[in-house]
Amino acid sequence: MEKHSGSSQPGAPVRSGIPEHGRIPKYYMVKAKLAALLDELGEGRLLPTERDLAVGYEVSRETVRQALRELLLEGRLRRKGRGTVVAGPKLEQPLALASYTEGVRRQGLGPGRTLVSLERFPCSEALAPEVDTKPGEPVWHMERVLRADDERVGLESTYVAECRVPRLDSDFDPDSSFYAYLRDRLGIAVGDADERIETVLATPREAMLIGTPPALPMLLLHRVSRDTSGRPLERVRTLYRGDRFSFTTRLGPQ
Amino acid sequence: MEKHSGSSQPGAPVRSGIPEHGRIPKYYMVKAKLAALLDELGEGRLLPTERDLAVGYEVSRETVRQALRELLLEGRLRRKGRGTVVAGPKLEQPLALASYTEGVRRQGLGPGRTLVSLERFPCSEALAPEVDTKPGEPVWHMERVLRADDERVGLESTYVAECRVPRLDSDFDPDSSFYAYLRDRLGIAVGDADERIETVLATPREAMLIGTPPALPMLLLHRVSRDTSGRPLERVRTLYRGDRFSFTTRLGPQ
Repeated sequence: MEKHSGSSQPGAPVRSGIPEHGRIPKYYMVKAKLAALLDELGEGRLLPTERDLAVGYEVSRETVRQALRELLLEGRLRRKGRGTVVAGPKLEQPLALASYTEGVRRQGLGPGRTLVSLERFPCSEALAPEVDTKPGEPVWHMERVLRADDERVGLESTYVAECRVPRLDSDFDPDSSFYAYLRDRLGIAVGDADERIETVLATPREAMLIGTPPALPMLLLHRVSRDTSGRPLERVRTLYRGDRFSFTTRLGPQ
Repeated sequence: MEKHSGSSQPGAPVRSGIPEHGRIPKYYMVKAKLAALLDELGEGRLLPTERDLAVGYEVSRETVRQALRELLLEGRLRRKGRGTVVAGPKLEQPLALASYTEGVRRQGLGPGRTLVSLERFPCSEALAPEVDTKPGEPVWHMERVLRADDERVGLESTYVAECRVPRLDSDFDPDSSFYAYLRDRLGIAVGDADERIETVLATPREAMLIGTPPALPMLLLHRVSRDTSGRPLERVRTLYRGDRFSFTTRLGPQ
């Protein structure tokens, strides 16, 4: 599969972005030229300054800024120090039961997690069947920032009944794989899960925690999993940077 | 699974959007209040005018507009005539080999497609192995707007070798299922596929064709499929409105 949703596709029309009927917005013409420039420059190379681009393309700096903003949101560019460089392809994370840790390792990156909060709260009616406990019983909510090679790439919230994982607060290293902990320390293996993917905008809090521009489009994965005996185990909400992640899956006969 | 990424989640912190440390943007406070209002009002109900909201929340109309814009981009609101109404939940399309047609029907909606373009072009080096033909040989590119109950919800580009589907231009009704045509008329069944999902911004052309606001976050699915004998068949790029679609999958043991 190709790596970019940029301008150089086979049979290009779909992503070429130019309406057949109607005006081409000026910023979009600049964006198309910039996209071609990025392909020429190659990953990691520094982009000319806003000012030089505005002079070169004979447009206002505001127009250049709008084009750069979209390329940043789409992950074609990234900030580096005070400059802007050409980004590499998005990470391709398999949609699989495997944990974040395993998925990131398979891509040759170093996974990391930073604990944001770990709290116990009384289980709600809606959550109870998903974590196999009774409403009002204690449930853990563990929130971690996900890292790949020290870059912050996501935010994960895990909900699991306290009776299932009684010593989560004292026994578990939050910078390690939760699934490995369940398996190795508690003998619980994840058997299957239902997952749902959507795109949402980062909230100000999320943007701050992950270190992204506000309102960056994110991929939000909702997971409800069961252990190998079919007993409901956890509910997970993971937000991934839309400019850094894509998800892959193999579809077979139904 | 819950239907919204809104404000009323169990153990709410992740999507509550309020940074623990740092200022809460004013528009975001309005957005949180509006999200609660939408839950009260319920699907299909008309929202008060921008002006009335600005007066009620004691903020500028610009602040209300920013909050409304994000709620629109996220699919919590939708335009109806000259007003704005509370949107229903996002469609949940299974990630499966089944066609768009079948997926939409399963949700009780009427699928439709409008042909945008059908053209033949010489196959590129990159595309050739994916459609099992030689570079330079003719390939079809068929582009269709996808509809659900007459609402435009996506844009699909199918690439398939002409030698595989010689009479696509004369024999196929573009407002029907391409997979049903392959199966019933040519005896070709799709065996398996690799799929990749990412989020991208709508280009001006796409926004015009689908009728969405420019720069709406979209879900882009790339598919490369093979027939039941394992022979490469088609490459498909489908763009779905991020405010209207989510994708679901069941994950089992590896």
